[in-house]
Amino acid sequence: MLAGMDVLPRRGFLLASAAAAANVAIRLSAQQVSRESLVDDVVTANHVLAAQEIFDAFGHISVRTGPGAGRYLISRSVAPAQVIAADIMEMDLDSKPVGNEKRTSYRERFIHGEIYRVRPDVMSIVHCHAPSLIPFGITKVPLRPVYHNSSFVGEGIPVFEIREAGSDTNMLVETPELGKALAKSLGNKPAVLMRGHGAVIVGKNIVEAVARSVYLEVNARVQAQAMAMGQRVTYLDEGEVKKRSADPDPYGRAWDLWKRQATQGNR
Amino acid sequence: MLAGMDVLPRRGFLLASAAAAANVAIRLSAQQVSRESLVDDVVTANHVLAAQEIFDAFGHISVRTGPGAGRYLISRSVAPAQVIAADIMEMDLDSKPVGNEKRTSYRERFIHGEIYRVRPDVMSIVHCHAPSLIPFGITKVPLRPVYHNSSFVGEGIPVFEIREAGSDTNMLVETPELGKALAKSLGNKPAVLMRGHGAVIVGKNIVEAVARSVYLEVNARVQAQAMAMGQRVTYLDEGEVKKRSADPDPYGRAWDLWKRQATQGNR
Amino acid sequence: MLAGMDVLPRRGFLLASAAAAANVAIRLSAQQVSRESLVDDVVTANHVLAAQEIFDAFGHISVRTGPGAGRYLISRSVAPAQVIAADIMEMDLDSKPVGNEKRTSYRERFIHGEIYRVRPDVMSIVHCHAPSLIPFGITKVPLRPVYHNSSFVGEGIPVFEIREAGSDTNMLVETPELGKALAKSLGNKPAVLMRGHGAVIVGKNIVEAVARSVYLEVNARVQAQAMAMGQRVTYLDEGEVKKRSADPDPYGRAWDLWKRQATQGNR
Amino acid sequence: MLAGMDVLPRRGFLLASAAAAANVAIRLSAQQVSRESLVDDVVTANHVLAAQEIFDAFGHISVRTGPGAGRYLISRSVAPAQVIAADIMEMDLDSKPVGNEKRTSYRERFIHGEIYRVRPDVMSIVHCHAPSLIPFGITKVPLRPVYHNSSFVGEGIPVFEIREAGSDTNMLVETPELGKALAKSLGNKPAVLMRGHGAVIVGKNIVEAVARSVYLEVNARVQAQAMAMGQRVTYLDEGEVKKRSADPDPYGRAWDLWKRQATQGNR
Repeated sequence: MLAGMDVLPRRGFLLASAAAAANVAIRLSAQQVSRESLVDDVVTANHVLAAQEIFDAFGHISVRTGPGAGRYLISRSVAPAQVIAADIMEMDLDSKPVGNEKRTSYRERFIHGEIYRVRPDVMSIVHCHAPSLIPFGITKVPLRPVYHNSSFVGEGIPVFEIREAGSDTNMLVETPELGKALAKSLGNKPAVLMRGHGAVIVGKNIVEAVARSVYLEVNARVQAQAMAMGQRVTYLDEGEVKKRSADPDPYGRAWDLWKRQATQGNR
Repeated sequence: MLAGMDVLPRRGFLLASAAAAANVAIRLSAQQVSRESLVDDVVTANHVLAAQEIFDAFGHISVRTGPGAGRYLISRSVAPAQVIAADIMEMDLDSKPVGNEKRTSYRERFIHGEIYRVRPDVMSIVHCHAPSLIPFGITKVPLRPVYHNSSFVGEGIPVFEIREAGSDTNMLVETPELGKALAKSLGNKPAVLMRGHGAVIVGKNIVEAVARSVYLEVNARVQAQAMAMGQRVTYLDEGEVKKRSADPDPYGRAWDLWKRQATQGNR
Repeated sequence: MLAGMDVLPRRGFLLASAAAAANVAIRLSAQQVSRESLVDDVVTANHVLAAQEIFDAFGHISVRTGPGAGRYLISRSVAPAQVIAADIMEMDLDSKPVGNEKRTSYRERFIHGEIYRVRPDVMSIVHCHAPSLIPFGITKVPLRPVYHNSSFVGEGIPVFEIREAGSDTNMLVETPELGKALAKSLGNKPAVLMRGHGAVIVGKNIVEAVARSVYLEVNARVQAQAMAMGQRVTYLDEGEVKKRSADPDPYGRAWDLWKRQATQGNR
Repeated sequence: MLAGMDVLPRRGFLLASAAAAANVAIRLSAQQVSRESLVDDVVTANHVLAAQEIFDAFGHISVRTGPGAGRYLISRSVAPAQVIAADIMEMDLDSKPVGNEKRTSYRERFIHGEIYRVRPDVMSIVHCHAPSLIPFGITKVPLRPVYHNSSFVGEGIPVFEIREAGSDTNMLVETPELGKALAKSLGNKPAVLMRGHGAVIVGKNIVEAVARSVYLEVNARVQAQAMAMGQRVTYLDEGEVKKRSADPDPYGRAWDLWKRQATQGNR
């Protein structure tokens, strides 16, 4: 599992979206580097979320091309573990491919376009079907923060009921209208559960979107277990959530590990 | 885990059974190709279901040789993860080997023959013992649809009680009579649980049979967890089940991934 | 995971203990072969039970050297996954090493000697600490058969309470007296739970002892889940247990797979 | 998984901290060997705890440099699975790096320094976030000993409530004051849970700290399952805990295995 780890150099990971977020004037050449780096990040994030079992054969992640940009990058419609750089497409906020693109992305791509449209702070979006999350969407039990690495849960995780958005659906968010309804359910929160379906998790960069996806799932498992013990549960309080969420880079160490494991096939 | 994935070409997978289902006039050479392709599919499906932990050392999957055909392909009696092309046998609907075959297949092969006999729509059948399914067979709690990828559960998953079919059995469906009784329990449904034993899952092609097996198991785990939270559960409703089940190819992306992982030993 | 499986020949596995059980007159040379084969089996069984997570760093398995023999083979005191042929020692029924042996075996070796002494039908013994079994030893909930591959559970799985055998112990069966008390608790059953500690599983050959260990653990998980659903559970009845237990070789297919996975490092 | 295990030599593992504990007069050269060996142990322990899933991308382990020493070794701030020898730093009991060290260790390093300060018997400390432990910190259900390899739980596992130590924290023990409060909660016990965060586990050497971490987690899972069965649970009693804890080296066999698996990438 950790074979050969010791002899491999560890390289700092240049987070392109973070650099972009710094909002510096970017020269053309830097911009090209940034695009390549963003594509790499999307590929890596797909592999990381598959390795962490947040994705199975389904699920997708996107990244906005830059602060305030009306474009995002996402893979064409393949399983996350199989995504390669050549699969990444550029979409506008109507979730239509940019340029002469003939390939199609995921049917539920509207999740991404419609959230980017109304959440300028969001730079990356994950859509997953992690089984542990489902019970909290199909019952009235709200997800609440039980774990310091999941403190963002304390900001509130609403539930999207697709029946209220469109009667008689096939459960999929496959129209702009359903995407808008989902974005409205999400509001200004870090994630939204989708009843009988999964969740959407957002972040101010790709690392945050990925790590929140991982720790949302851990929170769900821990909370379910604690509630099953039949006693009052002490959740993180408002001050703890606020202070913990103020941490500028709580997940960098995790991303560094996950990226390397995904790249090298170690886990 | 994902080692080397990026540098390997991704090839579209020609689903032989889908081609056959199109019901075109097939020339002899095409038929030979189709047979080879069907055998490959059965081998792959065995490995996929082992990798997905739907099979352990036991379990089997078969495929009908063509639309309306009175023959099916299944492995001789070996553990699913070990099945190779040379193990695949052809059986008639009495579950007797065709031709001069001296080898024996699984003792419970009658499950396959008797279901193919009465379900012309069924092109592939899985029999498994996945532990998560057992509690729903030994209690009166019915499996109900909680997850969009398991929407077919909403069509109804009956339970086969072998005591009603034959008093004093060893639990195994090892006679044509028990096979017929099981097929009757299944009726026109996508799957049937077997009390204290496992389940049988059917599909209009091998991809559907495999994917339904995977997502039946996920549904069982999610439903059990949701029920344990002690509140009313919102299941997919009739309209959602119907609309979702109308999707012509909901699992293609999964099969493409699973096939590749099984072939390359990645997971 | 299954990489390269297709190109490797599958060889029938000659089960030495089964051959021995046939009770034929064995010539010296055959006896030597048999010993080598038995040693191989003990090594393989150690690796299989580690791979199946019945053993962690602890646990042991032994095999009697022949029908009616007053000797058994067991590893010296190392973790099961690390056992190699050179580690296998021969012990008498007092659990003392035979000959000039200077090495020591497990502290709880008396489990093996004392059971072989009073159970001539037993040819192989497993001692494990599988966590799923513990709840059934520390509560009054009896293990009952819920799964056809675990039908032997219906013969009854008693619980050994070490406090009744010796006041003020360190929980370990590390004396002949405690071994005798454990053997008495086991009686003529296929397994006995040890309160707050683990279980001992016996078999008429090494395959049965290994497979029963695997399926005892599955039964515990399934039964706990079914009971948690808060409804009456239908267990296998006496006739089903009896008929299923009459099967002369229910686990051969599993052993063939497990042996190969353990030998080749695939899983 | 076990590929190639048989052909590799097994070497006895020289536990440097045990040697040090023997409190012999150590010559300079021996001391240098010991330091190298201690560093190796810290690296290995990081990999072992990651492989055992006690650590995810977060968590840390330290070792005191010698009996009575006011120094300890710990990695700089990287994920445990990635730690290499060059990452190990030496800290004083104020958790300040010794010498000209420019790198920074974990933000919660004060956990280590403050416990070493008040617990001369402690030679190694683990801080982890294992999800199974969290429910016992956020409810009033105390961890109690259910498993012989977790007998130390019977010495008592207190819960650290950070709200009592400092109002309005971000949950992290990132000051000397919080470290002191945590050390006070721990008292003379083998471990302390941290509400909504994780746990700290201590040992008289690195093997004990690692193994206690592993078996504390097993105990939590087993206890939760047993309690869910809704019946009175029989815990290890005082005498059993005392006698079991008197064992001078209960975990050596486990360490030998884990170390080898971590070193060779087998698991």
